[in-house]
Amino acid sequence: MDIPSHITIKEVGPRDGLQNEKVILSTKEKIAWINRLSQTGLSYIEVTSFVPAKWIPALADALEVASTIERKKGVTYAALVPNIYGLERALQANIDEINVFVSSSETHNKRNVNKSISDTLDVIKEVADQSLFTGRKVRGYVSTIFGCPYEGKINLDKIKKIIDSLLNMGIYEISLGDTIGIANPLQVEHTLEELKKSFPLSIFAMHFHNTYGRGLANILVSLQQGITTYDSSFGGLGGCPYAAGASGNVATNDLVNMLHTMHVQTGIDERALTLARRIIDDKLGKRFSSHLLQIKNEQVKK
Amino acid sequence: MDIPSHITIKEVGPRDGLQNEKVILSTKEKIAWINRLSQTGLSYIEVTSFVPAKWIPALADALEVASTIERKKGVTYAALVPNIYGLERALQANIDEINVFVSSSETHNKRNVNKSISDTLDVIKEVADQSLFTGRKVRGYVSTIFGCPYEGKINLDKIKKIIDSLLNMGIYEISLGDTIGIANPLQVEHTLEELKKSFPLSIFAMHFHNTYGRGLANILVSLQQGITTYDSSFGGLGGCPYAAGASGNVATNDLVNMLHTMHVQTGIDERALTLARRIIDDKLGKRFSSHLLQIKNEQVKK
Repeated sequence: MDIPSHITIKEVGPRDGLQNEKVILSTKEKIAWINRLSQTGLSYIEVTSFVPAKWIPALADALEVASTIERKKGVTYAALVPNIYGLERALQANIDEINVFVSSSETHNKRNVNKSISDTLDVIKEVADQSLFTGRKVRGYVSTIFGCPYEGKINLDKIKKIIDSLLNMGIYEISLGDTIGIANPLQVEHTLEELKKSFPLSIFAMHFHNTYGRGLANILVSLQQGITTYDSSFGGLGGCPYAAGASGNVATNDLVNMLHTMHVQTGIDERALTLARRIIDDKLGKRFSSHLLQIKNEQVKK
Repeated sequence: MDIPSHITIKEVGPRDGLQNEKVILSTKEKIAWINRLSQTGLSYIEVTSFVPAKWIPALADALEVASTIERKKGVTYAALVPNIYGLERALQANIDEINVFVSSSETHNKRNVNKSISDTLDVIKEVADQSLFTGRKVRGYVSTIFGCPYEGKINLDKIKKIIDSLLNMGIYEISLGDTIGIANPLQVEHTLEELKKSFPLSIFAMHFHNTYGRGLANILVSLQQGITTYDSSFGGLGGCPYAAGASGNVATNDLVNMLHTMHVQTGIDERALTLARRIIDDKLGKRFSSHLLQIKNEQVKK
């Protein structure tokens, strides 16, 4: 199997995970957990989102979390930023890297940020300019790549145009979001085959949700295509606002375990990663969709 | 992606699923559920196991279940049979097809049936002879192909010899069992590449457990290798006697959904399959590891 020997995992649990969980961690718990995640060998943690508190009450403490966590050398601490006001707070917290987001579906984007895609790209340009000016790298999420809860399949030419716009702003990486976890391996292959006609695949990260249990299968196809960066969430925390009962992002724990058994290096210490659950186990343990953590938790109970 | 356009799913929930569940269905519930499964387009259902009741109390009613279920035309009703006594009962119930089993690990086999592999093959030969004499096809499970809880990795030459013995008995299909769900896609590819040097891949079925969440990824690689027959369990029922908290077989529901989104035909009606949960939902619903059924159950609650 021709797949990369090393890959990078970008941990999005403290942001994408927690923003979709009903159970809210205290600020102290979030900080302790992120500090623990920093000790696992993860090289990238998206620690919070600087969106207005009324949008996502669970992350209202973004500034305190981002300002208080310990910064381990070699780890990039990133945050999601929707606009210039969010960026101001992110800079106040001295966040390492700025993540911006736009949907490839007009309807989904409108419902998400109450703006057209075009207007959203204008806002992102402003955020990117400012971020780059302060010497920070900017990463872009493009969501609903494999299907939208409102519009269904999204035209690939439209997706390419959005990616083009983001790259022209100096954004270094595009995270292709399977927002509702509907992608299938055949579609992932087809999409990447198409995208690589226009872009080097090295600019892409894959962001799969495990809604239908095929997140790891979709990652396998992405590996076969040569993609080396993957977003995932500790324990599989998250869920999906469009499907009650759904599991969240692909679980970092299960992903790391699969990769290591396939001799793909991640730089992550599996044991340390498993132990990082302890900080949040009491509150979120029942919500872990990670297969590995479900077994670990059962072992502890015995 | 070069994968088969049609595949066969062999439903093992009523046997492999129920034998590993703590919750025991009544005989009436089992019969009603199997009758319902017969209406989904499934062409093969392993309905029970004719092992001594003291081995698996949950399937002590094997004879009554197998004798009472309605037989739908076009559906093969199979049962697991450990020895000639089990076969007698299976024939009494007029089971269509006989499934025999042996482990590729000497230790696992010993713990499972208290016999050496060689002695087990002698017993299987007796069962196969008798079954074939009555005009019934015989299918063979070979377990711990990708790793054993006692012995770790099993030598492939040893596995090949066991397969050879079974084929020489007239067994038409070998189901390669990932008994503890430890296989990874790289290993599956390697194993099938090796096996196809000695056997046509068309004699193999893949039997994955989803212990670590990579069952569908392992199936994807098997599809890429050209395998067209897969064992799975309704709802992902089952579990693993060696890992408390583990999910069971790959969930038929999630597998069918993935295959259909990839335009692979299974002959199964997804809606009818989803509805088949209702018969057992009250007792086993909480045990469904199927992502699809977890979402469906949440939708019903709302």
